[in-house]
Amino acid sequence: MTLALEDAPCARDRSRDIQIARRLFDALRRATTDGIGITRLAYSERESEALNIVATDASQMDLRAERDAGGNLVISLEGTEPDLPCIACGSHLDSVPQGGNFDGAAGVVAGIAILARFREDGFRPRRTIKVYGLRGEESARFGRSYIGSSSLLGQLPAAHLALPASDTGRSLGDCMRDVGVDVDRVMRGKPLLDLTSIAAWLELHIEQGPVLETRNLPIGIVQGIRGNVRHRTIECLGQAGHSGAVPRGLRHDALFAAAELICRLDRHWRRFLDNGQDLVVTSGIFGTDAQEQAIARIPGLVRFSLDFRSHDGKTLAAFYDLFRRECDGVAEERGVAFRLDSRCATAGAALDRGWIDRLKSAARELGLADEELSSGAGHDTAVFANAGIPSAMVFVRNRHGSHNPSESMDLEDFALGVAVMRAAIRQAVL
Amino acid sequence: MTLALEDAPCARDRSRDIQIARRLFDALRRATTDGIGITRLAYSERESEALNIVATDASQMDLRAERDAGGNLVISLEGTEPDLPCIACGSHLDSVPQGGNFDGAAGVVAGIAILARFREDGFRPRRTIKVYGLRGEESARFGRSYIGSSSLLGQLPAAHLALPASDTGRSLGDCMRDVGVDVDRVMRGKPLLDLTSIAAWLELHIEQGPVLETRNLPIGIVQGIRGNVRHRTIECLGQAGHSGAVPRGLRHDALFAAAELICRLDRHWRRFLDNGQDLVVTSGIFGTDAQEQAIARIPGLVRFSLDFRSHDGKTLAAFYDLFRRECDGVAEERGVAFRLDSRCATAGAALDRGWIDRLKSAARELGLADEELSSGAGHDTAVFANAGIPSAMVFVRNRHGSHNPSESMDLEDFALGVAVMRAAIRQAVL
Repeated sequence: MTLALEDAPCARDRSRDIQIARRLFDALRRATTDGIGITRLAYSERESEALNIVATDASQMDLRAERDAGGNLVISLEGTEPDLPCIACGSHLDSVPQGGNFDGAAGVVAGIAILARFREDGFRPRRTIKVYGLRGEESARFGRSYIGSSSLLGQLPAAHLALPASDTGRSLGDCMRDVGVDVDRVMRGKPLLDLTSIAAWLELHIEQGPVLETRNLPIGIVQGIRGNVRHRTIECLGQAGHSGAVPRGLRHDALFAAAELICRLDRHWRRFLDNGQDLVVTSGIFGTDAQEQAIARIPGLVRFSLDFRSHDGKTLAAFYDLFRRECDGVAEERGVAFRLDSRCATAGAALDRGWIDRLKSAARELGLADEELSSGAGHDTAVFANAGIPSAMVFVRNRHGSHNPSESMDLEDFALGVAVMRAAIRQAVL
Repeated sequence: MTLALEDAPCARDRSRDIQIARRLFDALRRATTDGIGITRLAYSERESEALNIVATDASQMDLRAERDAGGNLVISLEGTEPDLPCIACGSHLDSVPQGGNFDGAAGVVAGIAILARFREDGFRPRRTIKVYGLRGEESARFGRSYIGSSSLLGQLPAAHLALPASDTGRSLGDCMRDVGVDVDRVMRGKPLLDLTSIAAWLELHIEQGPVLETRNLPIGIVQGIRGNVRHRTIECLGQAGHSGAVPRGLRHDALFAAAELICRLDRHWRRFLDNGQDLVVTSGIFGTDAQEQAIARIPGLVRFSLDFRSHDGKTLAAFYDLFRRECDGVAEERGVAFRLDSRCATAGAALDRGWIDRLKSAARELGLADEELSSGAGHDTAVFANAGIPSAMVFVRNRHGSHNPSESMDLEDFALGVAVMRAAIRQAVL
């Protein structure tokens, strides 16, 4: 379903949200364009510039803006009972190189719009509400994700401070220090705040897949963030030979073997979905060896990656076992061998059922479908959730995926997501 | 089966054949080694040197050596009725760069050994027997194969004389002229000899696949030369997307689609073999796009080659139709498109049943298995057969394939192949 702006409830609210959002997104775009897309690399001057733009705008709307010890931006509207655990929301302000303007920033702008409107309406929450403009969520510059939220929550291993920046080679620790982070505190691996001071974490984000677009829904409530199990490089080792001179029974064709493995995984995947299990399976890199390949040569070697994701760890483990069994089966039947590099696993995150239901109920009250969907990509929210903070996410419909300049979110959809979050937060801070 | 040299019939004959063969192979290797393998490129000085070595050796054994208008070497033992159509045999003396010493040369040396022993034994054939040392069989230098046999039989299109050499850029016509070819005659596209003057063409060649090695047979009789149908580059066009964020039902995964196509072809292939049809299927080049691929990206594009071979043109046509239908089926089911480049086809060659049976009978009389096998690689023999000359081939067991320095043929196996050919020729020229 889609709602025409004039028919929907709270149309006045939403047009004001759109006004604030347009102003902030435009300012961010102007300041951080790279000519093709948007570039605000983690712990770079451009990222700091994005934080400054949001801070200045928020201050002008009479909101308090400060930086925490991790260099993240914190905008707050103080509650009448400031000792109660606060409601925190937000997202990240960095981007990949030549990325889009909405990935991350939308969640920060949503929080600002919520606070600004509470302020304008004279609404005084009991609990303090904080909006985080986090740094360093994207892995593009230092090869690891969620640096801002991880350092905030005491989850960044000290060793990672030595990671070199892909552009300058300067270490993460030095780059953090450049933008004002208290690196000595971060290095201690303790949270930069009292975790019990946060009652909940909420994040609005553009959907990075096509689910909402396909289902014709402006927003969705995230039911969980998928964890993944990966192999970067699996080698299927067969035996090269002349394409015309080796009969089928004597072949050890690495390509036919690897293709069969993919087809077997595909069949299991379908079965898992039929059983109602959450799972996606991808082989993003797959190919015969460029040094050896020829049209008339039976491939002796195929290299490929595998990426399995589910928000259920047991599903992932079960699928991984099947994958290993199918490797053995194909190897046995076709006289090839599969050589696996080390398995990389990232835990998923269970989101808070209470908050999911609160967001769904708010959506219904606004006349919207309350569809749940999975987040396949990781988000700062996973770090909050895995630190024990009740967490939830709202996705906004977006075309053309993310991490590219053509990501495309309608501000009307965005305003519906803001309205849902605002309603749920208002209820929690009354 | 393998025969110990001392147990087998005609052991004396074979040890003399081995002596001649070793001398010739050693001389060729010494003259044309490149340090790693053997290099005798088509219409190069090295190739001419190989022709000269064989010519000199043959002359010293009282055989007549000359060059035809195509620059090929022709060694002959004149028959008592020289006006009868002759029996021709031989193979090519060129090689790929860093190739092996036996691919091609074995067939020429076999012919020399047969003639030399007839001469030594005082055997006077009724029909003249000719051994051809052909030039330019390999496509490595000019991008086309069978230049020597094609020009001999009037099958070389004049346009191909403009093909540039991969090493010097000099045209094929100029390179041919350099080594004494009558290029003006070749250009006319007429046979350089009267086709009716050849009663049969026989070629001994190392097997380029593992069939004889696997079946533990020293030699085999070729039942046909496989033709092929090829696509150099097929594109499977899907839609790229985030590996975590796109559920299965919304994917247009080019890799899963291309892998499924391969698996479907594999199933049809098995069925064809079960029906007794001759077929091999290879995708030698296959992969996601190097510019776009990433572990966390659903592949939007896969490129791959396909090579189908059979010695039965109808089988090839039927399999090709199935392939096109499966492209349509997979495209329909997975929402992808297959974009095919132009189809390249090379006709196979039916070999002469009379000569196949004569060779098999000779093998049996020598106590050898009379196994038939297909030639997957092309050979000059296909050019003779397709010019209407009754043709046949004997394969000799060879390890490690061909077109590489580690090809490996035992001279004892070679001598068994020579014995079979000698017996069949002797019967035909009596």
